[in-house]
Amino acid sequence: MNVLIVHAHPEAASFTTAMRDAAADALTESGHDVRVSDLYEMKFNPVASPNDFLGRANEDYLVYALEQRHADANGLLAPDIKAELDKVVWADLIIFNFPIYWFSMPAIMKGWLDRVFVSGRCYGGMRFYDRGGLKGKKALVSLTLGGQPHMFDANGVHGPLPDLLKHLLRGTLGYLGFDVLPPFIGWHVPYISQQERTALLDAYRERLLTLESQQPLAFPSLEDFDELLRPKAHGTA
Amino acid sequence: MNVLIVHAHPEAASFTTAMRDAAADALTESGHDVRVSDLYEMKFNPVASPNDFLGRANEDYLVYALEQRHADANGLLAPDIKAELDKVVWADLIIFNFPIYWFSMPAIMKGWLDRVFVSGRCYGGMRFYDRGGLKGKKALVSLTLGGQPHMFDANGVHGPLPDLLKHLLRGTLGYLGFDVLPPFIGWHVPYISQQERTALLDAYRERLLTLESQQPLAFPSLEDFDELLRPKAHGTA
Repeated sequence: MNVLIVHAHPEAASFTTAMRDAAADALTESGHDVRVSDLYEMKFNPVASPNDFLGRANEDYLVYALEQRHADANGLLAPDIKAELDKVVWADLIIFNFPIYWFSMPAIMKGWLDRVFVSGRCYGGMRFYDRGGLKGKKALVSLTLGGQPHMFDANGVHGPLPDLLKHLLRGTLGYLGFDVLPPFIGWHVPYISQQERTALLDAYRERLLTLESQQPLAFPSLEDFDELLRPKAHGTA
Repeated sequence: MNVLIVHAHPEAASFTTAMRDAAADALTESGHDVRVSDLYEMKFNPVASPNDFLGRANEDYLVYALEQRHADANGLLAPDIKAELDKVVWADLIIFNFPIYWFSMPAIMKGWLDRVFVSGRCYGGMRFYDRGGLKGKKALVSLTLGGQPHMFDANGVHGPLPDLLKHLLRGTLGYLGFDVLPPFIGWHVPYISQQERTALLDAYRERLLTLESQQPLAFPSLEDFDELLRPKAHGTA
């Protein structure tokens, strides 16, 4: 497989960074081609703006998604976006590796989603979920947090973590058509022992080397909705 | 009330920007003090980094939340963060006004959360949900999107929008202790008529002038959890 690891952590010596390296090494050793986008190291610009387009369909009024379509179709995407989009097209698996900030990604990675998953190429019109533009690719979210599993039980103080990550797992990756694997979660990372960290990295490597056998998360099928996106009478919803 | 409007849209003539202005005007006219943080206009930096601190508790290894605490306590927060944090402290109500990007905020606003809601002052330890550091303040999410309400019905293709926004409504604003009002949602905005836009702005003004009568969203109470955040036997969970 071609594997893209999109990584963001402001501390180069962090455990999250060790996860990035464990993934790159384990996947390379087992014969995969691995590329890494280290967003802090690249000083990636996360702010969607008119500067993202070398030319515009409408110079007077910015509709970002429409300009993404126009720019992608006409070779007018800013070079930093084009470089990342080329990696997306190349990849069979994309791993998003980050520490949880406010039950989501750090802004530098959120902006990678905003700018790189361009309308038209990656989604648009009725091309989402099982008709998404990135259908056939896998995505894995691998994250670290300070919390412990019991806080995210069904009756835990926060409720299930995948519910808090729904905007990402379903609303972004599932929407784009990825086979979204169950997230790998590094629990309680700031507080665990070196031995526990080593065990966590071992568990992560094990996950990465058995991806083929893992069942993706379930999302809706557009087959169950009509052309106005209303549930069909025989829909399973 | 003191009202802070945090606004982000890359097009100054957008409908989302008209919502910002409608809110500022309506609230000012009814006697409130209003300040606006227009993140695009301010060229707000959304990337959490070591540069956010004028001095460090630990120069060798960055734990962002711990440095936030240290910097806030010692007057060492970067000036752009300090200026926004002062507005948060001043505000009785914060309105987050933005177009949905990937069922969340644009990165420039996500980074405002990451950098401005500093650990220690705003949350920390057992200070979250009904013990959150920003308890007593109100928060309102006002957003625009291209989708239509039926797509977000219980059996709609995406499911309820508040479920997709849980990371923000509960995981961020509820966690911080805000009274989180039901979001104001500008449906189908790119596709509606001028008349419908006018009606939507009228509805928004009406919402803003009746905030006192609106019931905040329900979140857990830490009274129902023990000191290890396990549900108490008599908990309501």
